[in-house]
Amino acid sequence: MSSNARRVSSRALAAALASAALSAPASVRADEGMWTFNRFPADKVGKAYGFTPDAAFLDRARQSAVRLEGGCSGSFVSPEGLVMTNHHCAESCIDELSSPKKDYMSDGFLAATRADELRCPNQAINVLTKIEDVTARVQAARGKAGLSEKEGNEAAKAEIATIEKACQTDPGLRCQVVKLYNGGVYDLYTYRRYEDVRLAFAPEFRIAFFGGDPDNFEFPRYDLDASFMRVYHEGKPLDTRANHFTFSTTGTKAGDLTFVAGHPGSTSRLQTVAEIETWRDFGLVPRLLFMAEYRGALLEYANRGKEQARHSRGELFGIENGFKSFRGELDALYEPAVLAAKRSEEKALRDYCMADKARTATYGGVWDAIGGAQKVWRHASGRYNLLERGRGFRSDLFSYARSLVRAAEELPKPNEKRLREYTEGDWAAHKQGLQGKTPVYPEFEIFRLTWSLTKLRELLGADDPFVKATLGKESPAQLAERVVKGSKLGDPKVRAALLEGGAAALAASKDPMIALARAVDADARAVRKQMEDEVEAVVAKNHELLARLRFEKLGTSVYPDATFTLRLSYGAVKGFVQNGRPVEPYTTLGGAFDRHTGADPFALPKRWLDKKGALKLDTPFNFVTTNDIVGGNSGSPVIDRNGHVVGLIFDGNRASLGGDYGFDAAVNRAVAVDARAILHALEVVYPAGALLTELRGGR
Amino acid sequence: MSSNARRVSSRALAAALASAALSAPASVRADEGMWTFNRFPADKVGKAYGFTPDAAFLDRARQSAVRLEGGCSGSFVSPEGLVMTNHHCAESCIDELSSPKKDYMSDGFLAATRADELRCPNQAINVLTKIEDVTARVQAARGKAGLSEKEGNEAAKAEIATIEKACQTDPGLRCQVVKLYNGGVYDLYTYRRYEDVRLAFAPEFRIAFFGGDPDNFEFPRYDLDASFMRVYHEGKPLDTRANHFTFSTTGTKAGDLTFVAGHPGSTSRLQTVAEIETWRDFGLVPRLLFMAEYRGALLEYANRGKEQARHSRGELFGIENGFKSFRGELDALYEPAVLAAKRSEEKALRDYCMADKARTATYGGVWDAIGGAQKVWRHASGRYNLLERGRGFRSDLFSYARSLVRAAEELPKPNEKRLREYTEGDWAAHKQGLQGKTPVYPEFEIFRLTWSLTKLRELLGADDPFVKATLGKESPAQLAERVVKGSKLGDPKVRAALLEGGAAALAASKDPMIALARAVDADARAVRKQMEDEVEAVVAKNHELLARLRFEKLGTSVYPDATFTLRLSYGAVKGFVQNGRPVEPYTTLGGAFDRHTGADPFALPKRWLDKKGALKLDTPFNFVTTNDIVGGNSGSPVIDRNGHVVGLIFDGNRASLGGDYGFDAAVNRAVAVDARAILHALEVVYPAGALLTELRGGR
Repeated sequence: MSSNARRVSSRALAAALASAALSAPASVRADEGMWTFNRFPADKVGKAYGFTPDAAFLDRARQSAVRLEGGCSGSFVSPEGLVMTNHHCAESCIDELSSPKKDYMSDGFLAATRADELRCPNQAINVLTKIEDVTARVQAARGKAGLSEKEGNEAAKAEIATIEKACQTDPGLRCQVVKLYNGGVYDLYTYRRYEDVRLAFAPEFRIAFFGGDPDNFEFPRYDLDASFMRVYHEGKPLDTRANHFTFSTTGTKAGDLTFVAGHPGSTSRLQTVAEIETWRDFGLVPRLLFMAEYRGALLEYANRGKEQARHSRGELFGIENGFKSFRGELDALYEPAVLAAKRSEEKALRDYCMADKARTATYGGVWDAIGGAQKVWRHASGRYNLLERGRGFRSDLFSYARSLVRAAEELPKPNEKRLREYTEGDWAAHKQGLQGKTPVYPEFEIFRLTWSLTKLRELLGADDPFVKATLGKESPAQLAERVVKGSKLGDPKVRAALLEGGAAALAASKDPMIALARAVDADARAVRKQMEDEVEAVVAKNHELLARLRFEKLGTSVYPDATFTLRLSYGAVKGFVQNGRPVEPYTTLGGAFDRHTGADPFALPKRWLDKKGALKLDTPFNFVTTNDIVGGNSGSPVIDRNGHVVGLIFDGNRASLGGDYGFDAAVNRAVAVDARAILHALEVVYPAGALLTELRGGR
Repeated sequence: MSSNARRVSSRALAAALASAALSAPASVRADEGMWTFNRFPADKVGKAYGFTPDAAFLDRARQSAVRLEGGCSGSFVSPEGLVMTNHHCAESCIDELSSPKKDYMSDGFLAATRADELRCPNQAINVLTKIEDVTARVQAARGKAGLSEKEGNEAAKAEIATIEKACQTDPGLRCQVVKLYNGGVYDLYTYRRYEDVRLAFAPEFRIAFFGGDPDNFEFPRYDLDASFMRVYHEGKPLDTRANHFTFSTTGTKAGDLTFVAGHPGSTSRLQTVAEIETWRDFGLVPRLLFMAEYRGALLEYANRGKEQARHSRGELFGIENGFKSFRGELDALYEPAVLAAKRSEEKALRDYCMADKARTATYGGVWDAIGGAQKVWRHASGRYNLLERGRGFRSDLFSYARSLVRAAEELPKPNEKRLREYTEGDWAAHKQGLQGKTPVYPEFEIFRLTWSLTKLRELLGADDPFVKATLGKESPAQLAERVVKGSKLGDPKVRAALLEGGAAALAASKDPMIALARAVDADARAVRKQMEDEVEAVVAKNHELLARLRFEKLGTSVYPDATFTLRLSYGAVKGFVQNGRPVEPYTTLGGAFDRHTGADPFALPKRWLDKKGALKLDTPFNFVTTNDIVGGNSGSPVIDRNGHVVGLIFDGNRASLGGDYGFDAAVNRAVAVDARAILHALEVVYPAGALLTELRGGR
């Protein structure tokens, strides 16, 4: 019910949420909204800031922004395919390229020449090329007379798969039907997909994530959370002369207008109160408890040794980041004013509905229907998360095994009958993951699988038939050790052969991880099917109705919830007040040295300490803006009214963590690396002359 | 807001809570209630079960039950001071007596002769000798004209300290004023306190806690969670000819009447809705998150090695047990019916109040006042738990240091001005903890302190002035290592000298742990004072008023919330229904062998496997009853209508975990070891002839 990529999980909360977006569009605050490019409120921006973005401005922003596989944003920043994103968005690539001898996470990475750029084992970059409205087709499929909700849901999904397949005329494309306004609009997004992505530059983890978990989602901050990758096409740097941003030479000052073009992952601003409350108590709280315990285990696992710390740090970062983000979301939902605002919004919409007989007949039942589905969700979601969503089998080898087992079963089916991730629209990305050269660390695999199997047993109970069948007479540790040590799936060639060989190869395989994945698959599919038929089908149908009711009442001059698709937000560089104290909008490089204690996570890299004397310490380092962003926006460029890069989004402040549910311009802030700090660090600290020249457009 | 000892945390929940105790005493269900002996509903028992306990029965039960320091119950079961309790209640003693060479937790312990019984480093047993009503004195102190709530609270506490001191005529006594009915009654309890407590028998951990965490709070169960300790007085076994239970020779069968005499720790059945909701979201959830992460860390810490596992297992058990118990409590509070019942109860009391002008004038403001205090609690409790309640400084050495620092400051003050734990009523127990020979494991101390300091920084923020002052330029790990390695407080003699030496010795000490405790003390005291003045004072005052209102409406023929004081509950051996399936009331020894997989926690001890052939496998092992119990009842004897021991309480079932808030006789069950299994195991498995003879009364 929420996105995976949440580092930049900006958004409201705050007691003053009373006028949330869609219920009262007239009162939408300045700067709120993750707008689609076709409905961007340019006039509103003009009135507020004296600059009205024209078509050329919007086109450049749209064409220069890219989406990273895995939940981040980025942008082209040179004519030669150079992509700017966050260090934490390139982290899995950096980690996967590292080894005991060359630890690019610790030491940073700079390709001396183009030839030294290293291909990421498992990265892809998607460039949006086309959007087409397919609302009528999808809604018609779902709404066909005589279909039950379950049948309508299957019909809509089949129609989506059919639309995507027809679009997929070329293996380099990625076609996705995107649900906007909770099903009020369905758009077909066509991306050009590039899998040859190479790392050009990454700073040391210590400066990328200076302040670590304690400073995450906080401001003031002092992080160089930036990296550069290059897209290659047919062996050469991609030609992006026509679609890239250039770096600003002047930067911003307080009050300046800023735009953020990126891919916010997921918000829940249109959800009903029943959905939010169910998610809070039966989604968020169990997830946080799961993450908290896993975090404790991971932190201590890292104490086993330096290599174990290296193997587990990506997972640890993901868990700590998610934990803090979800914790903030929970805090927001514990603010009585937040839910009170949602209730009054919902009441207004309901009153509007019930004031008219025809509307009541069409829409009057949606709240009860959605509420009923929440009860099913509440009782099934624990099992669903454990069996189907990886909480009970946390292991890369298991994921490979499941993908192979399912691919053999799903791929031979007609496209529209497959599980979502095996349809033409999604399979390319899924397949890349299966083929990638991501290293597998058996000790870490055993640790994770043991831990998650222990949770499986704990949460379902030792006497649950599925648990008994899965564990047999083994303990979680015994089972995990046996299947990890016995598995050959860490070898990409073995996986490729099994994928190629299909059902017959799978049937002949003696790999114990394959056997495990096969043994649990029927139960996992069953609980997924229950969720799809009894929850998703009901909610999707009634969300569509609710969306139509909202359009009737409010028109379409509002923005849809975030869906990990391209959006543009506007705002300004602006400080805020926290705990009664004003927080300035900029930090400086010098501030990082003041905060340095020498002990992680407050230890600067040696290279920075050595170069301190050469740095202009008053260079702006990080800054905050009122742009409305959320997880998925990580790596988005901040651009000024000239369309120049002035910053790089990497986080939201603490007050932004309730942003799933609304936006409060008074306290909600996006946090960005200042472009001036990026350039100055590249010049003085590393130094990265060629890259710098490229960013400066040859200057 | 909830007790520490929660293993046996029985009690309701369930959708059917509608008729909770005090709002409708006429409809109190059969078997509900943790009754004080002076108001035990003997007639009601007579009507329901055909047996009316007489004064002799009640007196024996009262006199034979004992209270263990640390949150458990027990009972005398021979004329020579032999105490029966749970293995998990003796666990800290067993652990503290163990060493790398002799691990009594793993191997069990049986004293071959009296001379071989081993003194527990840190145990005391309290025998209740007298109860005196002091309600008028305490309430008068609080209610004195012209006092603010804060002043009234201080006056009431001073009066309590004065009453206790006057009672404390002999160092062997322990006098405590107990608040009953949330302040409707104050009773002075006088205990005879015995500190020479010796371990006589403990089984192996594997059979005491067979099924481990997965089976905890579940039934069916197969645990020999029993141990025997002996109280010595002036070097000889205590003479308990006049006050002990004898073992039943016949045992029970389904439907038999059972009594449980013990010390239920804490329930919240009289709390207001505002208190319960605040506790759920801002007490329970943060506590669970804290425990979850710590649990993950502890489980992985144990993988460092066998010794590390031994050092940390007591802590792990406490955390896992608490986590599961609080998780069940949270689940109960997420059942809409539970809070709906509380709301309707509260409304009925409020309506009764508001129906009368005089009542309204006296009591009408209590709900708002309590609600207001909850808001303070919500915002201050995080800091309070970290600074004052040990969550930020989890270390035995730190606890010693704080106790020494505070003792030097508090003990010279007049008794009624001291912090509670340094008053005459509590100091003996506190002092024993300070003097005990509990081993200190530096590596484990560093681990715990590092972890909790990391939480301190995380939860208050790296920029919090207290955090900055505490950590300085050190990381949590650096600080923890320095103060643990540099401290001599692990040596009881060093502590004794500092205690003896008072303020002067403290001032001269260079111990870094003393320095740390001293450095943080002012802030810790400040937040404690805020909680006492702004929360405790307001709640105590208004709880007293609420109690009087309840007495007006309902009379006093009801039971008070649990307060870790002696209570008697009645019930019957009875199965229940879970997930639609009937659960039989008894398990057998044979069932344990069926459940044995060979992998912990489902591995039986070798001794049991070896003796399987000699065991009567149909011997009842564990059983469930409808007795209303809760954490603190661990170790309570189950007695039949003849006053004979038929079982030993050690747990509650899953449905009992909401029992803080009510009781549902349909599903709530107490879980006990059957006396027949104890005798049979002592005879066949260990064999423990002398102990067996003693339990059989020489037979």
